Amino acid sequence: MTVDDLTPFLNVATMMADAARCVVRPWFRSSLAVIDKADQSPVTLADRAAERVMRAILAECLPDHGVFGEEFGLENESASYRWLLDPVDGTRSFVTGRPMFGTLIALLKDGVPVLGMIDQPVTQERWIGLAGQPTRFISPLGGQAGTRACKELAQAELSCTSPEMLESAPHDGWKTLKKRAKRMTWGGDCYAYGLLALGQIDIIAECDMNPWDWAALVPIVEGAGGRITAWDGSPLHADGDRTVLAVGDISLHAEAVRALAPSP
Amino acid sequence: MTVDDLTPFLNVATMMADAARCVVRPWFRSSLAVIDKADQSPVTLADRAAERVMRAILAECLPDHGVFGEEFGLENESASYRWLLDPVDGTRSFVTGRPMFGTLIALLKDGVPVLGMIDQPVTQERWIGLAGQPTRFISPLGGQAGTRACKELAQAELSCTSPEMLESAPHDGWKTLKKRAKRMTWGGDCYAYGLLALGQIDIIAECDMNPWDWAALVPIVEGAGGRITAWDGSPLHADGDRTVLAVGDISLHAEAVRALAPSP
Repeated sequence: MTVDDLTPFLNVATMMADAARCVVRPWFRSSLAVIDKADQSPVTLADRAAERVMRAILAECLPDHGVFGEEFGLENESASYRWLLDPVDGTRSFVTGRPMFGTLIALLKDGVPVLGMIDQPVTQERWIGLAGQPTRFISPLGGQAGTRACKELAQAELSCTSPEMLESAPHDGWKTLKKRAKRMTWGGDCYAYGLLALGQIDIIAECDMNPWDWAALVPIVEGAGGRITAWDGSPLHADGDRTVLAVGDISLHAEAVRALAPSP
Repeated sequence: MTVDDLTPFLNVATMMADAARCVVRPWFRSSLAVIDKADQSPVTLADRAAERVMRAILAECLPDHGVFGEEFGLENESASYRWLLDPVDGTRSFVTGRPMFGTLIALLKDGVPVLGMIDQPVTQERWIGLAGQPTRFISPLGGQAGTRACKELAQAELSCTSPEMLESAPHDGWKTLKKRAKRMTWGGDCYAYGLLALGQIDIIAECDMNPWDWAALVPIVEGAGGRITAWDGSPLHADGDRTVLAVGDISLHAEAVRALAPSP
């Protein structure tokens, strides 16, 4: 696939992210937050509304493409191009007013992520990844796309969304990784992968991840110079073990995979 | 002390926060971040530069006031008014590019915090607390000052900066608190107290806290309708046990103190 082929799809992704931003933003820290019935939390309402809006744009612009979103399932199952949508990745950040959640938009061709976008609706930051192209970053807060050099685990800034997430890890390999890394920080969901793509974080190790959590991150991390796989170093796959390992400096990958291996 | 008495001091605090914002912001996510010698990390440089600037403003405007900052120690020790400055509270957020650190400015009269400010230099959010007045919040991201009602621990959103912080807790009371709360989220340093003052978080329990970490938070949390004490419910004090408990709904305080008590 040539670079030009993706341009119309990027335009549609941009339209979707812009629209999702407008829909999600008013729910953030809003007094609407008093609505908190079983499945009617503000984040659910923001999530559903934004997914509807993005689907409406796709139906208009790219009616033959497949779409998957958590709230409204799969459409056009047999299409070669499939969009994965996650309007609010980072529910816990959203509900506590932390501006570190994100809208995730991914386009897969025959199962391979070729376009990825992370949009932060309130800080108005956006990461754009296209297969084979350098990642772009637009932000009023500062920072530039591009991972940083970090050759050794002992020098690496490690991150994970929460200790609770690691409670469902397939094994305790992350404890060894944490011990060998320079420092561990918590929080961020998709936003942390964005920070890795800015050279602010060196490694992220997470588990319990769905394809709509990681697909958009693949072109962003790779286009910034990093690498993203499962904990065992194998490519991310919808039927995989739901673990994700991202490194900013690809020469760190082998050491991270070794550290993450289950103890014998 | 009447309300009017604090106005000139608020003007000076605003001048300091504005200046600190200008000094700190360029270091955030900057390529200056390659400087990382022992005591020359970007956060240390931002910290020192901002403290110098704030001290220069105080020396000009309020030369008789006391000042304490971590980097340059105590001046005018015997003054009845003393400023506590912490230009970058939330070092780990700063060094990983997370916009959830803050500049803390507090004014104490005879040891009692009468003015507090949290400023987020990159998102440009600011919380302003004056003893006996409603907390004010200025932010392009949305949200309104004022804690929310939450009568029961089982309904409460609990927060703490990091699991690592709790490793130095004086006892394991926080584990009971965590078990009884609805949910726990991590991260934020001073910013989390700001979110409590917006009604986004119900309880914060932290330890290992210095007076310059908590003094600015007192008028902000109280002016938003909450309460802030040590874990045992006693008033915060420079010679205290370094624990901090903040609740948005003051009727939650007694239950939180009970949950936080050391197991017999």
